[in-house]
Amino acid sequence: MNIPRPSGPIAPFAVAMGDPAGIGPEVIAKAWAVRKAQGLSPFFAIGEHRALAAVWSGPVELITSPDEAVGVFERALPCLQLDTVGEVVPGRPSIEGAHCALHALEIGIGLAKSGAAAGLVTGPVAKSQLYAIGFTHPGQTEFIAERCGVARDNAVMMLAGPSLRVVPVTIHIPLREVPEALSVELIRTRAFVTHKGLMRNFGIERPRIAVAGLNPHAGEQGNLGREETEIIAPAVESLRADGLDITGPHSPDGMFHAPERAVYDAALCMYHDQALIPIKTLHFDDGVNMTLGLPIVRASPDHGTAFGIAGHNVASPGAMIAAIRMAEKAARFRSQTPEPALG
Amino acid sequence: MNIPRPSGPIAPFAVAMGDPAGIGPEVIAKAWAVRKAQGLSPFFAIGEHRALAAVWSGPVELITSPDEAVGVFERALPCLQLDTVGEVVPGRPSIEGAHCALHALEIGIGLAKSGAAAGLVTGPVAKSQLYAIGFTHPGQTEFIAERCGVARDNAVMMLAGPSLRVVPVTIHIPLREVPEALSVELIRTRAFVTHKGLMRNFGIERPRIAVAGLNPHAGEQGNLGREETEIIAPAVESLRADGLDITGPHSPDGMFHAPERAVYDAALCMYHDQALIPIKTLHFDDGVNMTLGLPIVRASPDHGTAFGIAGHNVASPGAMIAAIRMAEKAARFRSQTPEPALG
Repeated sequence: MNIPRPSGPIAPFAVAMGDPAGIGPEVIAKAWAVRKAQGLSPFFAIGEHRALAAVWSGPVELITSPDEAVGVFERALPCLQLDTVGEVVPGRPSIEGAHCALHALEIGIGLAKSGAAAGLVTGPVAKSQLYAIGFTHPGQTEFIAERCGVARDNAVMMLAGPSLRVVPVTIHIPLREVPEALSVELIRTRAFVTHKGLMRNFGIERPRIAVAGLNPHAGEQGNLGREETEIIAPAVESLRADGLDITGPHSPDGMFHAPERAVYDAALCMYHDQALIPIKTLHFDDGVNMTLGLPIVRASPDHGTAFGIAGHNVASPGAMIAAIRMAEKAARFRSQTPEPALG
Repeated sequence: MNIPRPSGPIAPFAVAMGDPAGIGPEVIAKAWAVRKAQGLSPFFAIGEHRALAAVWSGPVELITSPDEAVGVFERALPCLQLDTVGEVVPGRPSIEGAHCALHALEIGIGLAKSGAAAGLVTGPVAKSQLYAIGFTHPGQTEFIAERCGVARDNAVMMLAGPSLRVVPVTIHIPLREVPEALSVELIRTRAFVTHKGLMRNFGIERPRIAVAGLNPHAGEQGNLGREETEIIAPAVESLRADGLDITGPHSPDGMFHAPERAVYDAALCMYHDQALIPIKTLHFDDGVNMTLGLPIVRASPDHGTAFGIAGHNVASPGAMIAAIRMAEKAARFRSQTPEPALG
């Protein structure tokens, strides 16, 4: 049985704009424009209001504190203005823009940690731009984890759409390094964070996790690979002994059609594309990247800066809307779910 | 521009029953039952008619030659009866049943080669049962290739559904062996057979092939793996120089949502699950396994014997119907397409 979601007032959500020259400002503005039809909770943008004006002619109102956002939200998109980056040219990233994106992220984390914001939604950044200004984390997620005092392995990326949630055990490594990177301990860590995250962020009382094999047909009893018998099956068994509702290893190609998806709440996948191929096949336009294991709610649309189309008014706000909505649900579930004892 | 499909009379299709104790007989009978609504061309089953009677109460008529099938098809399911296997118990495979499955396959190949059948559709077999009677091929496909005098690497498995066709470059090997198994030559071989197969079996005049990378984000310019720059990109370039309309390597997770699927006719995938995960996610119930590179048309439903549900009258004939229909289309295209010069 799932936990009913309370519907009372809640603090506004912080939406860090991401790179001001990417499609972040446009999809935030478009999400605000459909706030009523979509039933979105109040949120405010953090960044450079000129980036909004460069791509959108709707109303923007500057605020200096999150608590002003709720009053403004009805009539205009509230924007917490940071340093001025000068002229913003959509599609033309700059050093000033990268500084602004990073600053917005930092402020957003702080507001979410303090409770002034109910959660943080992050717009897309360009990693190469951030690296150019001395950013040394692989991505926003690792930066957020560090600022929240969470070990990197405990901040877990989940991709979630309306009909599927996936968590990759290994992520941005070459495919040939995946078998060596897998271990019972790593699978256990990811499974525990996933289990807790499904309870806290999705209100699922007893989460069901399905674990994928690594090899074709999950190795066919060792004939097509031994990682299932030596690593994955022992990890699943030990997690079951610890009380998790977890199954597998399953044949990876048989896990993602509709009847199978209906019997689990999240699929734990062994590598990037095993998780990303099915979620993007099904939910390319409304997939949300949700970070599990953090003290704050953090979601982001599962797309990049798309500099090539920035300023052309063709970016779809679907994923941003889905991220804001998922963050709101998570914040509401968290407000009434005690920290789970397990794990 | 695609080639129009002629609609005149055509020889009947041979449908080898597969293991008589599996769901093959049931889905063949169910396909016959909806032949009119589905507009299916005449076909006949090859195998043991008692396997049909064990799971189905509809009309079966024994034939001794394919040319009787067309006249019978209207009123009964024609069955070319082979050796008697005795009593068939659905869900209980036997040595006699394995012999019957293999015999049906051999007869079907012969009829398709002679032209007495317009093509061959194969029901599911249990490999472990076939191995027990001395069958030494990895599967039906390799057996058919050998009987047709085609080298194993030139008989290529394609999985095809209404919105996606995929061809895996490597198939039933452990994931950790995939990087070493890839070569420019292997990718070229698979691409040429795919190109010709799309022309001959699908009537596509100028096939468009999209090639997947191996690593996350197709290796990010070598930062996440080097197979793209060292093997896949050179293979794609050389194929383009040979005149193929081929692109890639593409980021594997961005290739399978609807707008991307619309710009290619087949995706060439580097490993089993890269191909099978998207096709089974989208087309679990109507995916067809089509063997390219053979002198005969050969299709099969993309499912197994499913002994567990055999005889329970719950098996869906969707994939068998799709296989028969795809075989018919392929036979018609072949009847008016000259052998392509390229490759």
